[in-house]
Amino acid sequence: MFVKNAWYCAGWQSDLSSAKDALVSRRIAGESVLIYRKLNGDVVALDDRCCHRQAPLSLGRKEGDDIRCMYHGWKFNPEGKCIEIPGQAEVRQNACVPSYPAVVKNDWIWIWMGDPEKAEESLICESIGPSHPDWDMNPRHIRVNTNYRQEIANLTDLTHVAWVHMDTFGGTTKYPEIKGKLSMLDRGIHNDMWVHSVPAPSFAKHLFPDDALFDLHFDVTVTIPCNFILHFRVFTAGTNTAGPSNGELILDTFSSQAVTPRDADSVDYYYSWSTRKGTAHPGLIQLLIEANEDAFLEDKMFLEGQYQRMKDKPDYKMVDYAHDAGPGRMFWLLDKLLKDEAEAAA
Amino acid sequence: MFVKNAWYCAGWQSDLSSAKDALVSRRIAGESVLIYRKLNGDVVALDDRCCHRQAPLSLGRKEGDDIRCMYHGWKFNPEGKCIEIPGQAEVRQNACVPSYPAVVKNDWIWIWMGDPEKAEESLICESIGPSHPDWDMNPRHIRVNTNYRQEIANLTDLTHVAWVHMDTFGGTTKYPEIKGKLSMLDRGIHNDMWVHSVPAPSFAKHLFPDDALFDLHFDVTVTIPCNFILHFRVFTAGTNTAGPSNGELILDTFSSQAVTPRDADSVDYYYSWSTRKGTAHPGLIQLLIEANEDAFLEDKMFLEGQYQRMKDKPDYKMVDYAHDAGPGRMFWLLDKLLKDEAEAAA
Amino acid sequence: MFVKNAWYCAGWQSDLSSAKDALVSRRIAGESVLIYRKLNGDVVALDDRCCHRQAPLSLGRKEGDDIRCMYHGWKFNPEGKCIEIPGQAEVRQNACVPSYPAVVKNDWIWIWMGDPEKAEESLICESIGPSHPDWDMNPRHIRVNTNYRQEIANLTDLTHVAWVHMDTFGGTTKYPEIKGKLSMLDRGIHNDMWVHSVPAPSFAKHLFPDDALFDLHFDVTVTIPCNFILHFRVFTAGTNTAGPSNGELILDTFSSQAVTPRDADSVDYYYSWSTRKGTAHPGLIQLLIEANEDAFLEDKMFLEGQYQRMKDKPDYKMVDYAHDAGPGRMFWLLDKLLKDEAEAAA
Repeated sequence: MFVKNAWYCAGWQSDLSSAKDALVSRRIAGESVLIYRKLNGDVVALDDRCCHRQAPLSLGRKEGDDIRCMYHGWKFNPEGKCIEIPGQAEVRQNACVPSYPAVVKNDWIWIWMGDPEKAEESLICESIGPSHPDWDMNPRHIRVNTNYRQEIANLTDLTHVAWVHMDTFGGTTKYPEIKGKLSMLDRGIHNDMWVHSVPAPSFAKHLFPDDALFDLHFDVTVTIPCNFILHFRVFTAGTNTAGPSNGELILDTFSSQAVTPRDADSVDYYYSWSTRKGTAHPGLIQLLIEANEDAFLEDKMFLEGQYQRMKDKPDYKMVDYAHDAGPGRMFWLLDKLLKDEAEAAA
Repeated sequence: MFVKNAWYCAGWQSDLSSAKDALVSRRIAGESVLIYRKLNGDVVALDDRCCHRQAPLSLGRKEGDDIRCMYHGWKFNPEGKCIEIPGQAEVRQNACVPSYPAVVKNDWIWIWMGDPEKAEESLICESIGPSHPDWDMNPRHIRVNTNYRQEIANLTDLTHVAWVHMDTFGGTTKYPEIKGKLSMLDRGIHNDMWVHSVPAPSFAKHLFPDDALFDLHFDVTVTIPCNFILHFRVFTAGTNTAGPSNGELILDTFSSQAVTPRDADSVDYYYSWSTRKGTAHPGLIQLLIEANEDAFLEDKMFLEGQYQRMKDKPDYKMVDYAHDAGPGRMFWLLDKLLKDEAEAAA
Repeated sequence: MFVKNAWYCAGWQSDLSSAKDALVSRRIAGESVLIYRKLNGDVVALDDRCCHRQAPLSLGRKEGDDIRCMYHGWKFNPEGKCIEIPGQAEVRQNACVPSYPAVVKNDWIWIWMGDPEKAEESLICESIGPSHPDWDMNPRHIRVNTNYRQEIANLTDLTHVAWVHMDTFGGTTKYPEIKGKLSMLDRGIHNDMWVHSVPAPSFAKHLFPDDALFDLHFDVTVTIPCNFILHFRVFTAGTNTAGPSNGELILDTFSSQAVTPRDADSVDYYYSWSTRKGTAHPGLIQLLIEANEDAFLEDKMFLEGQYQRMKDKPDYKMVDYAHDAGPGRMFWLLDKLLKDEAEAAA
């Protein structure tokens, strides 16, 4: 179900400082994970379960860099080794909890759920976070009750923008004419897509003349498990009908979206959408953020409705079409990684 | 569990016009069904699931007589055939969704869940709907969390009126003396029942002298899956102690009740109770409607309590008694139809 | 899962008089039980399920010492025998519902869930109830969503007071030094424990000088299924460092706690904590009751968090330590009784 050897986003780093007692409990790929900071700022991620009686360590207490389970007082260091058992002199070797490699990159917390030996930081996806000086960005979170495969399919067929997001990011039914250069990455896909001569997105339509037309550019990288990194630019419609626009750049945006499976039926979705400072119409960033929030609720409605149907008939044969190339490649990659891990484990 | 070749009530036809975007999604006998009207008023019923990615079509958009899935824009005609796939010139044969025969009769919407070839309209139960000129009627709906077999058993042993509905329709413990002429129909049972010399029902007791006595007549038809059609009349108590009353008709009512199984554990219950115009005491129709609403909540409380117990001990051996003849015959019929369909499918 | 031949607490006897229609429905060890009083005050406990159509008898009506099912009017005597079936002259032998031995002892209602022949009242645990003249006591109830084994483990390792109840009953981390004389009983364990020279419990700390020290004595009896009877006394710290204190008794309390499994995942917890009249600081009983309520919510938080983890990984291997002797013995006893009953049934 879940690739183990992958970095999973555990939220915005600001979640850690604002949490009660600075302890955060996350459900990631079927595991409960406790996350906190050491005194030097490093992030610690441990199995959120005391090895004694399975009480959540997230109900515990930080003591320096360590965490004390507040059920019977067992104390663990950041590596997950038990270093004190009140009422018992000896602490045996087997008293420990799994720890996970954890780092912060571009304001996101990342947890490696597999073999620590393989946790290379270079595998963390590139993105832009709210502390980046060049972009205006609001970090957000939403929970969607679906399997993460459906999020992958949603994000790798952008023609849905025309229909699902008709009243927010859409505004044209020309999205199905979108032309992309799709390429495979080691752990994902990259797509470079243009839509030419379309009206402004619905959320910004009132800022332009009725007959104004634009060229839209999407530079998308999607990586395992389900990170969607988008550079989206709007140009005034040029005379080019294919490939790069020769119009004028009027809107430069970046969206960082990380979808983390909680369990089979639920994902945590950490997202943002930003405009490059100084390039946008005044007030556009606020319109963009509001449209973004509405759009994610539109997705949620469709994805949860879809998932109810899917669970209802697990053997239903779906009909594919041309724009399923993106979803298809991501599923091919995901299934390959899952198979590799299953074989390595066996 | 569910007979396929049967008409299932999908609600009052007024539900269609008042629905958002005039699209209604119903759960019927384990299937999700989209219902809407064509421009000529005909009712369309389709599997509420796009064949592409299983998004609910009820989140879609009516376009003339057609329905467009608003996930990726696939468009279906009223027969369920896909007639447009944005971004792909060809629409293959397998791009279609199941459609169900659907008609309106006496203000109820009826869906045939089985083989369309066998969908004879004559199999729809006779009833009286709110648009009938001779009756005052309020259409109602309630959901009950039980299996529909328990609704069948409830409706075919009316002695429960004495106890469950003591404070509404009851008012006498003579119901167990009820005498009926029970006969089998092709797809149901008919019962002609009299109770003699009883006080007025609790809800109308204050309209009559304390010692007033009445003869009650029930003409009941129950058909598959669980339609309960009742002509209920009240006479002043005559001297006849069996069979038709020779008293004076003082109240003439009709109740149309259709119970549609949603899934194994839940039913939608569409009901009404009416008085014949001009025959009733002033204000009696309102008393009747209020008593009716209370009575259905009384049933709901018992049926849901009962069903919790049943699920708790699936193998519990129940003890039958004399008045289980009605339930027994309906179950015999239901099981025969289920067996016939299972054999035909095998 | 549940020992049948045991007395299970069904709540405080005051629950019976304050209940609607004086009928109480309880879930006990996987069974639904109806409880009511006869006219002479004796307690009746019957399967809360009519043998006809499984409607809850607790939706019924008391008639003298009998109970009438209000679905179809069947009437049962306190032994569970059906004595009237409206509409049918004969009442057959098999029309009956199981009855359970039931008694009130020390203000708790007790139900024997197994073979009535073996229901000896001497097996009911000793306790002190709110009507005892020597103690000030408030009866309470809480529901905890865990398996009762986790309650057993919680109550038989009191070192958790130091951590879970740090802000209420705790106030020292010396609990892990607690020394006890643990002995096995036929159906439980007894423990006589001292903690010496510790500060006052957190909830009462402000009543004493900052450097005041105390000796604490716990006399605990835990019996099957999960009754925790505690005599807890506080002495000014004496010079004895082991065994009985030679300080002055300043607080004499008694706590009666009965944990009744409802199903695998839930327990009803009936508890109280009292001070001996005339011995306590003015106002202390109120502080004690408030601390007690807070402490039970602290336990609930840990137990429910723990149980979520346990259900998540049923095969997780837990690590034991020195203070698991109490839990271990109770589990040994419980498993032995379960095995004996399984063998006797086979």
